[in-house]
Amino acid sequence: MLEWPEKVTIKEVGPRDGLQNETVEVPLQDKVAWINLLSDAGYSYIEFSSFVHPKWIPQLKDAKEVAAMISRKKGITYAALVPNRKGLEAAIDTDVDEVSVFMSASDTHNKKNINKSIEETYPVLKEVVQEAKLEGKSVRGYVSTVFGCPYEGAIDTDQVARVSERLLDMGIDELSLGDTIGVANPRQVDQALHEWKQWLPFDKLAMHFHNTRGMALSNVLVSMQHNITTFDASLGGLGGCPYAKGASGNLATDDLVHMLHQMGIETGIDEEKLKEAAVYIQRVLNKSLPSHQMQVVNKERV
Amino acid sequence: MLEWPEKVTIKEVGPRDGLQNETVEVPLQDKVAWINLLSDAGYSYIEFSSFVHPKWIPQLKDAKEVAAMISRKKGITYAALVPNRKGLEAAIDTDVDEVSVFMSASDTHNKKNINKSIEETYPVLKEVVQEAKLEGKSVRGYVSTVFGCPYEGAIDTDQVARVSERLLDMGIDELSLGDTIGVANPRQVDQALHEWKQWLPFDKLAMHFHNTRGMALSNVLVSMQHNITTFDASLGGLGGCPYAKGASGNLATDDLVHMLHQMGIETGIDEEKLKEAAVYIQRVLNKSLPSHQMQVVNKERV
Repeated sequence: MLEWPEKVTIKEVGPRDGLQNETVEVPLQDKVAWINLLSDAGYSYIEFSSFVHPKWIPQLKDAKEVAAMISRKKGITYAALVPNRKGLEAAIDTDVDEVSVFMSASDTHNKKNINKSIEETYPVLKEVVQEAKLEGKSVRGYVSTVFGCPYEGAIDTDQVARVSERLLDMGIDELSLGDTIGVANPRQVDQALHEWKQWLPFDKLAMHFHNTRGMALSNVLVSMQHNITTFDASLGGLGGCPYAKGASGNLATDDLVHMLHQMGIETGIDEEKLKEAAVYIQRVLNKSLPSHQMQVVNKERV
Repeated sequence: MLEWPEKVTIKEVGPRDGLQNETVEVPLQDKVAWINLLSDAGYSYIEFSSFVHPKWIPQLKDAKEVAAMISRKKGITYAALVPNRKGLEAAIDTDVDEVSVFMSASDTHNKKNINKSIEETYPVLKEVVQEAKLEGKSVRGYVSTVFGCPYEGAIDTDQVARVSERLLDMGIDELSLGDTIGVANPRQVDQALHEWKQWLPFDKLAMHFHNTRGMALSNVLVSMQHNITTFDASLGGLGGCPYAKGASGNLATDDLVHMLHQMGIETGIDEEKLKEAAVYIQRVLNKSLPSHQMQVVNKERV
């Protein structure tokens, strides 16, 4: 029989990765109320916003206000994404616990996303990491398109390992490897992790799957077989993927938590409170969330 | 690294298990055209209808006409469900290749479904199997609620093995073990298969998963680890589950085929032709099909 971890850590990225891909702008008060509901649900990590210029992501223009208004709970790391030094400084001003930086394993995707090559991105991130460390903040690094790029197609596992190593060398505390467009299949994840095991410290790895083709939970299963125990997820499956609009995007936290609990794997998260939080943000967005759990909830309410 | 089979057989149950759970009655001509599209897609097995009294399942009242009008392709087994001897005779009159019988691993579910206890059901099925064999037909047996029952909750793996053995002893050629309400989790499937391996011939087993909680593909993955290589699926995820109305029901053939092909596992099925068939029945039903593949197709068309 297969062996499974006893406990998994889920990092909630809905307030950032979820909302930035929704077209509706959520009012500040609702964001705060929602994040407070998330805080009550038992997470140890919530990425609450992004300090990126509002020109790029207007949905997250109130990061500073969100940071000031949410009730921070002991034991929860409240993190925010920062694209550069300016973003970092704004984040530090709000006393975040952790910042996250990001880049792509695909040169073309990186250029389309931030107008820089991978090589040009390293020094920018290095400066942010150094500054963050001086301020006593831990840093998370997102590497996107690790299983496939909308422009380049397949991405070499060696390329992902090289980018990841460079980021870890800067002092980044945890890497989140992202299947940004939801193309990874379980056999590919198994093979990639098998190769990365020789290069990368797995205790510093998190996996970030998208469910575009319905394979996200399967990819989590395979990752757990490699002793990966940290996964990013977005409540209700909030947030699409910009390259496959409307297709279900992020792995839904509620689906992941349900599967893990059914398997007897602890997450520390309360499913009932999670449902409350999902119902809340669903009402604010005025649309049905795509997670299977919410589909069941919504049908029960009809 | 995990090992995977080279080839998997997918048995299409959409025209029976899918349509019987849809509220819209599909016109005969459309059913025939749709099944012909399925025949062109590369399946080796299509369950095209059910010879059950139209009082119970009016959606399938035209089984006889469907059988007469579809273009049967060489190499494809055209099967139909039969509840009893009367249904069997009607099926044989239409020269089906195979018949399927069904019962539940849960006594309560069986009673609610066919008004008989499990013990009372055996002789009925035995008669059908004997008669079918005399007519030279192979017989498939569905065992439902094997991972959980809406009335009894958990179902003992021993109970499933006992029911399965009884059916195999009757001469049934293949057993399809069904997670009727979509509650199975991958760890449970792994444990159950580990136990059933001691009792049941795995070359005669197919698994029939529902995707109510999003775990169907994960359960297929785990089953493949036990060398199960036959799976039932319904195109587009057609057909809900009567106990969780509207929640996605059957495992979607298109999602399963996509995952398997991405993993380099052969199915013999052409994804483009599958998409054509899914688009066809979606237009007839006038609703979006829930499979991930169809969600992506539908978004591309907007």
